[in-house]
Amino acid sequence: MKLKKDQKLLFIGDSVTDCDRAKPHGEGLFQALGTGYVSLVDSFLQSTYPELGIRTVNKGLSGNTVRDLKARWQEDVLDQNSDWLSVMIGINDVWRQFDSPFIKHQHVYIEEYREKLDELIATAKQSAEQIILMTPYYIEPNPADEMRATMDRYGEVVKQTAEKHQTLFIDTQAAFNQVLEHLYPATLAWDRVHPNANGHTVLAKAFLNTIDFDWNKQ
Amino acid sequence: MKLKKDQKLLFIGDSVTDCDRAKPHGEGLFQALGTGYVSLVDSFLQSTYPELGIRTVNKGLSGNTVRDLKARWQEDVLDQNSDWLSVMIGINDVWRQFDSPFIKHQHVYIEEYREKLDELIATAKQSAEQIILMTPYYIEPNPADEMRATMDRYGEVVKQTAEKHQTLFIDTQAAFNQVLEHLYPATLAWDRVHPNANGHTVLAKAFLNTIDFDWNKQ
Amino acid sequence: MKLKKDQKLLFIGDSVTDCDRAKPHGEGLFQALGTGYVSLVDSFLQSTYPELGIRTVNKGLSGNTVRDLKARWQEDVLDQNSDWLSVMIGINDVWRQFDSPFIKHQHVYIEEYREKLDELIATAKQSAEQIILMTPYYIEPNPADEMRATMDRYGEVVKQTAEKHQTLFIDTQAAFNQVLEHLYPATLAWDRVHPNANGHTVLAKAFLNTIDFDWNKQ
Amino acid sequence: MKLKKDQKLLFIGDSVTDCDRAKPHGEGLFQALGTGYVSLVDSFLQSTYPELGIRTVNKGLSGNTVRDLKARWQEDVLDQNSDWLSVMIGINDVWRQFDSPFIKHQHVYIEEYREKLDELIATAKQSAEQIILMTPYYIEPNPADEMRATMDRYGEVVKQTAEKHQTLFIDTQAAFNQVLEHLYPATLAWDRVHPNANGHTVLAKAFLNTIDFDWNKQ
Amino acid sequence: MKLKKDQKLLFIGDSVTDCDRAKPHGEGLFQALGTGYVSLVDSFLQSTYPELGIRTVNKGLSGNTVRDLKARWQEDVLDQNSDWLSVMIGINDVWRQFDSPFIKHQHVYIEEYREKLDELIATAKQSAEQIILMTPYYIEPNPADEMRATMDRYGEVVKQTAEKHQTLFIDTQAAFNQVLEHLYPATLAWDRVHPNANGHTVLAKAFLNTIDFDWNKQ
Amino acid sequence: MKLKKDQKLLFIGDSVTDCDRAKPHGEGLFQALGTGYVSLVDSFLQSTYPELGIRTVNKGLSGNTVRDLKARWQEDVLDQNSDWLSVMIGINDVWRQFDSPFIKHQHVYIEEYREKLDELIATAKQSAEQIILMTPYYIEPNPADEMRATMDRYGEVVKQTAEKHQTLFIDTQAAFNQVLEHLYPATLAWDRVHPNANGHTVLAKAFLNTIDFDWNKQ
Amino acid sequence: MKLKKDQKLLFIGDSVTDCDRAKPHGEGLFQALGTGYVSLVDSFLQSTYPELGIRTVNKGLSGNTVRDLKARWQEDVLDQNSDWLSVMIGINDVWRQFDSPFIKHQHVYIEEYREKLDELIATAKQSAEQIILMTPYYIEPNPADEMRATMDRYGEVVKQTAEKHQTLFIDTQAAFNQVLEHLYPATLAWDRVHPNANGHTVLAKAFLNTIDFDWNKQ
Amino acid sequence: MKLKKDQKLLFIGDSVTDCDRAKPHGEGLFQALGTGYVSLVDSFLQSTYPELGIRTVNKGLSGNTVRDLKARWQEDVLDQNSDWLSVMIGINDVWRQFDSPFIKHQHVYIEEYREKLDELIATAKQSAEQIILMTPYYIEPNPADEMRATMDRYGEVVKQTAEKHQTLFIDTQAAFNQVLEHLYPATLAWDRVHPNANGHTVLAKAFLNTIDFDWNKQ
Repeated sequence: MKLKKDQKLLFIGDSVTDCDRAKPHGEGLFQALGTGYVSLVDSFLQSTYPELGIRTVNKGLSGNTVRDLKARWQEDVLDQNSDWLSVMIGINDVWRQFDSPFIKHQHVYIEEYREKLDELIATAKQSAEQIILMTPYYIEPNPADEMRATMDRYGEVVKQTAEKHQTLFIDTQAAFNQVLEHLYPATLAWDRVHPNANGHTVLAKAFLNTIDFDWNKQ
Repeated sequence: MKLKKDQKLLFIGDSVTDCDRAKPHGEGLFQALGTGYVSLVDSFLQSTYPELGIRTVNKGLSGNTVRDLKARWQEDVLDQNSDWLSVMIGINDVWRQFDSPFIKHQHVYIEEYREKLDELIATAKQSAEQIILMTPYYIEPNPADEMRATMDRYGEVVKQTAEKHQTLFIDTQAAFNQVLEHLYPATLAWDRVHPNANGHTVLAKAFLNTIDFDWNKQ
Repeated sequence: MKLKKDQKLLFIGDSVTDCDRAKPHGEGLFQALGTGYVSLVDSFLQSTYPELGIRTVNKGLSGNTVRDLKARWQEDVLDQNSDWLSVMIGINDVWRQFDSPFIKHQHVYIEEYREKLDELIATAKQSAEQIILMTPYYIEPNPADEMRATMDRYGEVVKQTAEKHQTLFIDTQAAFNQVLEHLYPATLAWDRVHPNANGHTVLAKAFLNTIDFDWNKQ
Repeated sequence: MKLKKDQKLLFIGDSVTDCDRAKPHGEGLFQALGTGYVSLVDSFLQSTYPELGIRTVNKGLSGNTVRDLKARWQEDVLDQNSDWLSVMIGINDVWRQFDSPFIKHQHVYIEEYREKLDELIATAKQSAEQIILMTPYYIEPNPADEMRATMDRYGEVVKQTAEKHQTLFIDTQAAFNQVLEHLYPATLAWDRVHPNANGHTVLAKAFLNTIDFDWNKQ
Repeated sequence: MKLKKDQKLLFIGDSVTDCDRAKPHGEGLFQALGTGYVSLVDSFLQSTYPELGIRTVNKGLSGNTVRDLKARWQEDVLDQNSDWLSVMIGINDVWRQFDSPFIKHQHVYIEEYREKLDELIATAKQSAEQIILMTPYYIEPNPADEMRATMDRYGEVVKQTAEKHQTLFIDTQAAFNQVLEHLYPATLAWDRVHPNANGHTVLAKAFLNTIDFDWNKQ
Repeated sequence: MKLKKDQKLLFIGDSVTDCDRAKPHGEGLFQALGTGYVSLVDSFLQSTYPELGIRTVNKGLSGNTVRDLKARWQEDVLDQNSDWLSVMIGINDVWRQFDSPFIKHQHVYIEEYREKLDELIATAKQSAEQIILMTPYYIEPNPADEMRATMDRYGEVVKQTAEKHQTLFIDTQAAFNQVLEHLYPATLAWDRVHPNANGHTVLAKAFLNTIDFDWNKQ
Repeated sequence: MKLKKDQKLLFIGDSVTDCDRAKPHGEGLFQALGTGYVSLVDSFLQSTYPELGIRTVNKGLSGNTVRDLKARWQEDVLDQNSDWLSVMIGINDVWRQFDSPFIKHQHVYIEEYREKLDELIATAKQSAEQIILMTPYYIEPNPADEMRATMDRYGEVVKQTAEKHQTLFIDTQAAFNQVLEHLYPATLAWDRVHPNANGHTVLAKAFLNTIDFDWNKQ
Repeated sequence: MKLKKDQKLLFIGDSVTDCDRAKPHGEGLFQALGTGYVSLVDSFLQSTYPELGIRTVNKGLSGNTVRDLKARWQEDVLDQNSDWLSVMIGINDVWRQFDSPFIKHQHVYIEEYREKLDELIATAKQSAEQIILMTPYYIEPNPADEMRATMDRYGEVVKQTAEKHQTLFIDTQAAFNQVLEHLYPATLAWDRVHPNANGHTVLAKAFLNTIDFDWNKQ
C-alpha cells in the first residue's frame, strides 16, 4: 500500500470525478466526496486502513476541460498542499468536438491538451509527493469509432505525460475494455461517458490496484 | 466464488438494505438497487465477473422488523424464485425498545424474533439454493452499552438460526468492530445505525468475502 | 399528399413517440402531442394543409415494447377508429437485452416481436384505412455494433411485416444513417436513442416524405 | 441554398425568438436554442445539410422592443461576428400601446421604431454578410383591427428598411394570413402573439424558403 | 335590491366563474369563492348589506360546457337548495370549435346548447326562486369576427331561454362592448376570454346592477 | 369625479396596500397592482371611465411604518411625478407596540408619527396636485380596546395632517365601523388587520366615494 | 403527581391540539406529537419523570368541532384504551358562528354542544380511568366582546360537564386572562385563537399544574 | 428570579441554540427564536412574568465553534448591549475530532478552546451585567466513551472559566445524566447531540432553575 499515515489525497477532474460533491470544499460530512469513484476509493481506504488516517479531497467540477483546470490550478491544487494528486481530464476536451462540432471555441485539440497537461503536472510535481494520471475514456468497444479513436489519442498523451514526469498512471480505457469484452456499454453508461455504479467501481478498482491496496487485509 | 452463472441474488431487510431502492421491483436501470451495500455488492460482481450474468434484486424496506418481513415473505421472497437469498433484519426490532420505550406494541422481543426468523428461513430453504444470514448491528464500541448488548443477543439468535439451517452467516457487528478499534462511531454513522459510504463498504466487503469473491481476479 | 380531408392520424410507440404528450388523450390544446416528431408532423400538416382538417392523436408511452402495445391495442388503437395508424416500436424490446442483460423477463426476443407485431397489424388493418410501419433504430454508425446489428434485424422484421400486410414503410435507420455520414451520433442523441431536435426532425421528414407531403405547396 | 459552409447564423428578437433559450450564450447542448422557430430552422439545417456545419445562435429575449435591442446590440450582435443575422422585432413595441395604453413610457412609436431599426441595421451591415429582416405580426385576420393595422404599419417600416439596406425580407404576417384563410387564430395562438407548434412552423417555413432551403434534398 | 334577508345565491359556470375557488364546496373561509366576479359580487353584497346575511356559493368549474353542467346539475345545483341561481355557460362550447376545429366531439353546437340549457333552467325553476342567465361573451370588438359572431348567436339563445322561462338576464357581451368602445381587448384579457381584474369588474357591475344593488347605500 | 383625463394616481402604504403587487414598478400587466383595494379602485376606474386613461401605480410595501416611507419617499413618491397621491400608513407603527412590546426600537410612537407624516405630506404637496390621506384602522368594534384606542389616536393625527395640508381625507376606521355594526370582525379579517375580499371592498368603496366616483355612470 | 407508572395519556381536540402532529397515529419518533401544548406536556413529563414511562398520544385534528369528535370517538378514543383522556373542543363550534355567520350548517350551537360533549364523556368514562376537560378559549381580554362572551358560555358548559361526570377541569380562559392583564392578545396569537409558543406554554402549564406535576422534582 | 424588569437576554451558541431561528435578527414575530431551548425559556418567562417585559434574542448559528463565536463576537454580542448573556459552545469543537478525525483544521483543541472562551467572556463582562455559561454535552451515558470523556474535559474548562469570571454556570451534561439514568440516549437524540423536544426541555429547565425561575408563581 503506497499511501502512508496522515497523507492527504486530492482528486481533480470533470463530472466523472465531481459526481455532486460538496462545493466548494470537497471534503467533510454528508457525502461531501460525491457519489462516484472518489467516494468509493475513500470508503475502501477508510474501512480497510482506518489506522492510516488518510484525508481525501474531491475537487472535480462538471464540464471541465484541461483549460478549466489550468484556470483553477493554483487555488484548487497547488494551494491545497496535498501529498497525493490524482488527475483525470480530457473527456470534455474531446466530446465537444463530437457533440457540438460547429462550436469550435469549445474544443480543446490535442496539442493544446498536451501542452496544458504537461504544464499542470510540471508545477504540481513541486508540491505533491505522488501524482496519479488517469486517462480519459469512452465506454465504446469499437476502437475504430471516431470518438473512441480520438479519446485513445488523448489517453496516449496522458501516458506520455506520465512517463515524462514519472508519475503513476492508470489506463481507465483498458479497465473498461476488460468489462466490455463481456458486457455491452449500456450496462455501464447509457451515454458511454457518465458511469453508473458498475462503471464507477471499475474506476475505483483500477485506482486502488494502482496504489497497491491490499484487498485481503484484515 | 460461490455464485454461479446466471444465478439470481435477492436481498431483503430494513432501511440499511433499502437505501432508496426503486419500488416495487428493486431491480433495473437508474440505481434501482439503491445507494447502499446492495448496490456496492452488485457493482463489484458485475464489474469483476461480467461473464457470470448475476441478477441482483433489492427488496429492503425502511422501518421493517422481522414481523414486517413475515407479512410480505410470500410475495417478496418465495415468489421471486431467487437462487440466493440474503437477509439482514433486527435493527428496528431492537431500536424501538430504546428510542420509543413506552410504545410497546412496536417492540419485537427476542423470543418472537427468534421464532419468526426461524420460520422464515425454514420456508425459504425450500426455494433458495443458498441463504446468507447477516446479523443486525449497532455501531457502538462499548459492549456494555444497553442497546449494543441487546443487539448482540439478537445477533446471537441469527448465528444460531444460521447454524440450525446450515446457511452462510455474516457477523456484521464483528466487521464494524474491526474499524471501531481505530475510528469513532461518528465516522461511520452519526446515529450509529444508518451507515455513510464507509459503513456500507464495511458491509459490502463482509458480504463479498463470505461468498469467496476474488478481489484480485483480472 | 396521401392524407385526405377530415382524416384522423394516430401514432403509437414508445418514449420517442411519447415525448411528454398529454395523458391519457394525446390530443387537444397545450402541446398535447408532446415535443417530438409527432408534434412536428402535425405542425407541418396543419400549417401547410389547413384546409384538410387533419386530426392527429399521439398514443406513445415511454418504455413500451411490442408486448405493452398488445396489452393496450384494443383501447388505444382499435377503439380510436383512426383512418391512419403509424407504429414505431422495438427499441426497448432490444435495448433491455443490452442495458439489462440479466433481467431476461424484460427482453422481447425477435420471434415474439415478429409474432406480436404481425398480430397487431393484422387486427389494425380491419379498422384503419392506411398503416405506416416505422422501424426502430439505433443512432450508431457502426453496423457491426452488437446492438445496432440486433436493431437492424428487428427493423428487417418490420419491413417484412409491412410487405406482408402491404402497409407503408419507413426505414428510420436509413434516415439517420444519411446524417451519420457527416455527423457523429452525439449531435443527434447522447444515448443514441432519445433524439434531440435534430433527430426528431429526421424522423418527421422521413414520415412526411412517405405520405407525399408537398413541401413547396403554397 | 444561400448559407455556405461553416457560416454562423444569429437570431435576435423578443419572446417569439427567445422561447426559453439557454442564457446567456444561446447555443450549445440541451435545447439551448429554445423551443420555437429558431430551433426548427436549425434542426432542418442540421439534419438536411449536415455537411455544411452551420452554427446557429439564439439571442432572443422576452419582452424586448427595438429600444432593448439597441441597448445590447454591440454585445449581442456586433461582437458575435456572425455571417448571417436575422432580426424580428416590433411586437412589444406595438402591443404595449394596446394592453397598457396609459403607461406611455413603455410604448415605442413608429418614428422611433423606424429610426432605431435603421440605425441597428446600418451598423450590422458592416459585420454581417447577410441580414434577414422579419416583420412583426399579429395573428388576427381582420386588417381593420386596430392593433393589426398598427402592426401592419410597423411591418411596412421593416419592409422599407430591408429595401433601403438591401437585406433579405420575410413578411411573417403574410405567412400567417395564408393559414388564417382556413383556420381561426386560436388554432395558432390563444393570445394572437405567442405561437403554438403550428405557428412556429409557419415562421420556420417562411425563413427556410427565404434562404432557398431545398426541402427535397437527399 | 332584489336579494332578501338570509337568501342563498349560487353561481355556476366555467373557468370565468371558477377562478380558483375552493373545491368541492365553493364557500367558506380563505377566498373560497375564487378571485373573479363571484368574489367581487359577494364582497360588495357583504360590505354594503351586512344586515342581510346573504350566503354566496361558487360552483364554477374550469373547462365546463353546458354538457358538463348537465352531468352535475343534480348534485351541484338542485341539491343545493339555493334561493338564487346564476348561470354563465357557453364559452367553451364555442371556443373548442375555433381552437380545436378538428376534435369535433369536444364541440357543443348551438342546437344541443339550446336544448340542454333549456332543460337545465326548466328543472332549476322548480327549486330556485330566482334565476339569472348571463350570456357567454368574447372580448372582441369586431362583430364580424367568426368566433364573436358565433358567440353572439349563443348569447341570443341565452336571451331567448331567459325570456321563455322569465328569468333575469345579463348581456355580458354588451357590458364588455361599452368598454371596448374606448379600450382595446388586450386591456381586459390577452386571450379575449379570461378577464383580468378590469374584466371581472365589468361582469360584477353588470350583475349587481341587474339585482338593483344600491351603490350609494350607506 | 375628481380625476381628470390622463392623470396618474399613486398609492403608497404597508401590506394592506402592497397585497403582493409587482416589485419594483407596481404597474403593468399580470395583476401588477396586487390583489387588494388598489386593484379594486383601478378596476372600477378603468371599467367605468375607460375614456379617461387613468394610470394607477402601487408602491405599497409589507411591514412599512412611516419611518420606512420617509426612507424611500424621494424615489417612490417624489420622483414618480404622479398627479394624485394616496397614503395609508400607521398600522405597523402601532401594531409592533402591541405584538412586540419589548422590542422598542420597532415602535413608532405618536409624536414621531405626526412629525414624519407631516414632513412627507409637506414635500409631496409640491409635486402632486391632489393628496388623499387614509387613516390606519383596526377592525375591532370595541373603542376601549387598547390597540383600537391607540389606532384611533393615530387616525386623529392623520385627520389633523389632512386638515393642515388641506388634502382629501378618508376615515377608514369609520368605514369599517359601519360594517362592524352588523358583522363580527372575523368576517373581515382573522387578525383584525389584513382584510379579506370583503374588507378590501370596504376600503375601495370609501376611496371611490371620496373622489366622487359615479357608480351609476353608463 | 397524578399520573402513574406505565399509563397512557391521550389528547383529543382541534387545531390547537393538532399542531401538525403525525397522522394517523399521533405518537412515535420525529415530533409525532406536533409542536403545541401536547408536545410541551409530554416533554416535561418525560424529562422530569423518566422513570414513569408515560405514553402520550395526540389525536387532535384541525378544524374539528364536537360533532367531528363524535364521528371518530369510537376509533380515536374508545379503541385506544388510554388510562387518561384530555379533551379540548369548542373553538370552531363558536368561531364559525362569527367568521362565517351565514353558513349556518357549520355552526354548532350551545345545546348541541352540551349534549354531544356529555354523551362523549359518558362513554369515555367507561374506558378511561381519568378524564381532563379543558375549556375552549378566546384570547380577547374584553368579556363583553360577542365572541368572547359566547366562548365563555361554552366554557361554562364544559365546567358543568366536568362537574356532572366528576372529571378534572382546566379553565384555559382563566389561564390566558392572567397573562392578558399584562400583555395585549397579539403577543400570544394574532388571530386570538392559534397560540404562538407563549400561548402554548400557558396551556401546558395549566395542564401540568392540574395533574400535580412537581416542577421542583430532581 | 434573577432577571429584572426590562432586561434583555441574549443567547449565543451552535445549532442546539440556533434551531432555525430568524436570521439575522433573532427576535421578533413568527417563532423568530427558533424551536429549541431558547424559545422554551422565553415562553416560560413571558407567560409567567408578563409584567417584567423581558426581551430575548437568539444569536445561535449552526456548526459554530468557539472560533466562529470569536469572529462575530463584536457584532453579535458586544454591540447588542444585552443585560444578560448566555453562552453554550463546544460541541462542534469536539465533534469534528470524532466524526472527521483527519480534517484537522476543523478541530478546536482544548487549549485553544480554553483561551478563546476566556477571552470572549473577559470582554463580555464589560458590557453584560450577568453571564451564564452552559457546558457542551454529549448524550451518552458511558463516561468512558471517548467523545463523552473529551466533552467532559471541555465542560470542565467551561466550569473553570465560569469560576474565574464569576459567572453563573450550568452543567448541561449533569442535567442530561439525570434522565439517562432512566432512559436510553435515543429517546432524547438519535445522534446524541441534536435534542428532540424532550432534550430541549432538559436544557430549558436547567436554565430556568439557574435564574431562580419560580415555577409556582401565579
